[in-house]
Amino acid sequence: MERIKLAADLSLSRIIHGEWRLSDWNYTDEELLELIEHCLELGITTFDHADIYGSYTCESIFGRALAKKPELRERMEIVTKCGIVLESPNRPDHQSHHYNTSKAHIKQSVENSLQSLGTDYIDLLLIHRPDPFMDPEEVADAFHELKQEGKVRHFGVSNFKRHQLNMLQSFLNIELVTNQVELSAYELENIQDGTLDLCMEKRMAPMAWSPLGGGNIFTSEEEKAVRLRAALTKVAGEIDAGGIDEVLYAWLLNHPANIMPIVGSGKTSRIDSAVSALNHTLTRDQWFEIYTASMGHDIP
Amino acid sequence: MERIKLAADLSLSRIIHGEWRLSDWNYTDEELLELIEHCLELGITTFDHADIYGSYTCESIFGRALAKKPELRERMEIVTKCGIVLESPNRPDHQSHHYNTSKAHIKQSVENSLQSLGTDYIDLLLIHRPDPFMDPEEVADAFHELKQEGKVRHFGVSNFKRHQLNMLQSFLNIELVTNQVELSAYELENIQDGTLDLCMEKRMAPMAWSPLGGGNIFTSEEEKAVRLRAALTKVAGEIDAGGIDEVLYAWLLNHPANIMPIVGSGKTSRIDSAVSALNHTLTRDQWFEIYTASMGHDIP
Amino acid sequence: MERIKLAADLSLSRIIHGEWRLSDWNYTDEELLELIEHCLELGITTFDHADIYGSYTCESIFGRALAKKPELRERMEIVTKCGIVLESPNRPDHQSHHYNTSKAHIKQSVENSLQSLGTDYIDLLLIHRPDPFMDPEEVADAFHELKQEGKVRHFGVSNFKRHQLNMLQSFLNIELVTNQVELSAYELENIQDGTLDLCMEKRMAPMAWSPLGGGNIFTSEEEKAVRLRAALTKVAGEIDAGGIDEVLYAWLLNHPANIMPIVGSGKTSRIDSAVSALNHTLTRDQWFEIYTASMGHDIP
Repeated sequence: MERIKLAADLSLSRIIHGEWRLSDWNYTDEELLELIEHCLELGITTFDHADIYGSYTCESIFGRALAKKPELRERMEIVTKCGIVLESPNRPDHQSHHYNTSKAHIKQSVENSLQSLGTDYIDLLLIHRPDPFMDPEEVADAFHELKQEGKVRHFGVSNFKRHQLNMLQSFLNIELVTNQVELSAYELENIQDGTLDLCMEKRMAPMAWSPLGGGNIFTSEEEKAVRLRAALTKVAGEIDAGGIDEVLYAWLLNHPANIMPIVGSGKTSRIDSAVSALNHTLTRDQWFEIYTASMGHDIP
Repeated sequence: MERIKLAADLSLSRIIHGEWRLSDWNYTDEELLELIEHCLELGITTFDHADIYGSYTCESIFGRALAKKPELRERMEIVTKCGIVLESPNRPDHQSHHYNTSKAHIKQSVENSLQSLGTDYIDLLLIHRPDPFMDPEEVADAFHELKQEGKVRHFGVSNFKRHQLNMLQSFLNIELVTNQVELSAYELENIQDGTLDLCMEKRMAPMAWSPLGGGNIFTSEEEKAVRLRAALTKVAGEIDAGGIDEVLYAWLLNHPANIMPIVGSGKTSRIDSAVSALNHTLTRDQWFEIYTASMGHDIP
Repeated sequence: MERIKLAADLSLSRIIHGEWRLSDWNYTDEELLELIEHCLELGITTFDHADIYGSYTCESIFGRALAKKPELRERMEIVTKCGIVLESPNRPDHQSHHYNTSKAHIKQSVENSLQSLGTDYIDLLLIHRPDPFMDPEEVADAFHELKQEGKVRHFGVSNFKRHQLNMLQSFLNIELVTNQVELSAYELENIQDGTLDLCMEKRMAPMAWSPLGGGNIFTSEEEKAVRLRAALTKVAGEIDAGGIDEVLYAWLLNHPANIMPIVGSGKTSRIDSAVSALNHTLTRDQWFEIYTASMGHDIP
């Protein structure tokens, strides 16, 4: 599988597997291990986590499976995130939902992630959300120490707009290597508001969460979903795709920004669809047909 | 007439003639040639085209007139654009309305423009619209080759917002010399959203399309048009202008950003009005009276 | 009191006293002098003016009080602004409300301010509003000459968005040292639209006008005010604050951007509250409780 180079010593697989819903799948360690190995066989070597996924449980579940076959660690890249504080039975001391990008929180969060995942390094750590109360000097300190200690190899952000990314970067002597944002034919905001343009300007390949638009496209009777589904179905026929999910992935993969879609499914068939999408080339007619169907009006 | 220097070896006339509606005027080659010579006598040496104007016919019409007096070519600057694909009887292979900023399309579009215009160089080529599917490396390649080949002397964009312009520029080793955008007292978007500020920051004189606001100001009974017409009429009286169109041009010409209005009329009297506007100086009271009339509320 | 360094030779007091409503207080020169001395004793050494405050009267009123004890001048920093033209009985030649950032206007406005304040230098001069008709070269000339003449020590802006600040800065060989903008828990616009992020990116400490949200929070029955008042009241109890105004100030003072709130009250008790706020530390739970109460919805 194609790989995207984010730094001299870090590349990710073009398709990334996301662990957001891992705790919902109720897999045994063995079943999860099978899924991980299925991904690795397909060339999907990058696994996307966050401390908070599954109310702070997904990293541990993944770690338990990985512990059955620790030699897999060196064949994968682990991405995780920090900076959101959730109320959770698993964190009884948390009193409210807020963001925390203090040095102490970032460092503690990484310690927790390392322990839960059963690894001694994170390949890529992301600040999960832009924090309006962020002290960028604390973030810089935390990143610097974590890198020095060998606990985190590279750093990035998630859901940052241009001004937030530029601000934080200005305080760091380490280059942010990605911005993980919502990107799909269904949700065009980051494509239209300059977020994707800044990624391209900075030669920063973005990771795409909800590349299928959160599932709405498949089932919703809402106008936008109906319009988009029709366009996707037409294009699926034209390119002989296995389903409209393949077209949705192809729509992102064909974009020149080196977008890395995160596939958040626990079903191997769905993961296989994403990988199949790598073989599809959309014409400009097709790409814009999907784009304008999403907008609900023609381009000027 | 005042000239605006866009590069060491390119200056445009402050007033530009626009060929957007050339095919509607139904001029014989001789009549069009007269119009062109009228412009040149006034000092309007810059003619603004696009491949798509008149459903891909305007460049050819202009080219036929120019062929009657080829020596005029050296006395004018030809601006044209590419990047929009239109369905048209003149392009039977086009299957949908979309953007195409691929290297192949840009290069082919320039070949077509050169042939239609009957010239062997374009003074200034613009990307017509920001393309959400743009591969900036392809644009860079196309520009580089076109410059090397002597087919295009300079490059710019049209209708680009700040993030789009900054992104594309970051991939080019050639400086973009203009951004052609909608600018008028009627339509303030690019004045208020930072597009004009970026032009000033980059010392990039903008070309203004629809400098009269698309004609709405003259006839519409819509509130904004009525308000603005009243303010323009008052100022026209104060400065002894020939009509409110002169005031509209003067409103742009008095702005310090070196805005170059594009006059899209085939009538010499209308073109003369634009030139007359060069003699008018608006007071700050007058400039803001027009500005606030357009907004419909006072400044803070 | 903590001081914020804006330049090698300029620091302001963390809390600033604002003279916006000075003319409404109807103080005798002696009463005003007492207020000024009260501020100085608290460490509030910075006084924020504008030419237009009190319909062009506040600078003179302040100047008359200062004339009673001229030795105070060296113990304070005077900030003033220019660039707005108001219709006023005190400026019978003004014909309309507009902006004027021409060189002549800026220089004349400073002369007027110096005379009204009875001082021979301004510590910090701000352009009061972004002027859509600004000629940045004229501003640059005016600033350069005023600095050369020793009439103004430092320069900044007020109410500028990112693109406006970047544009003006690109024409200056002098660094803008602040952006005075509306910042409060009630009015989040500049916190959310990137204005505050740019200040941080440029290491430019912002001054905050209307840090209490213009008083709405205390009395309005509007939903947003009610929501916010409840959150502030709860936090006031938790941190043992004297009132919700202290919490509002603390909310800004705890932010890492080095925000300098402008206290626009003529009552010493209100000024004391702002100073007391310097002692309060908000937890992240509390800061976000106030933030989300203002927004009316949770963070993502």
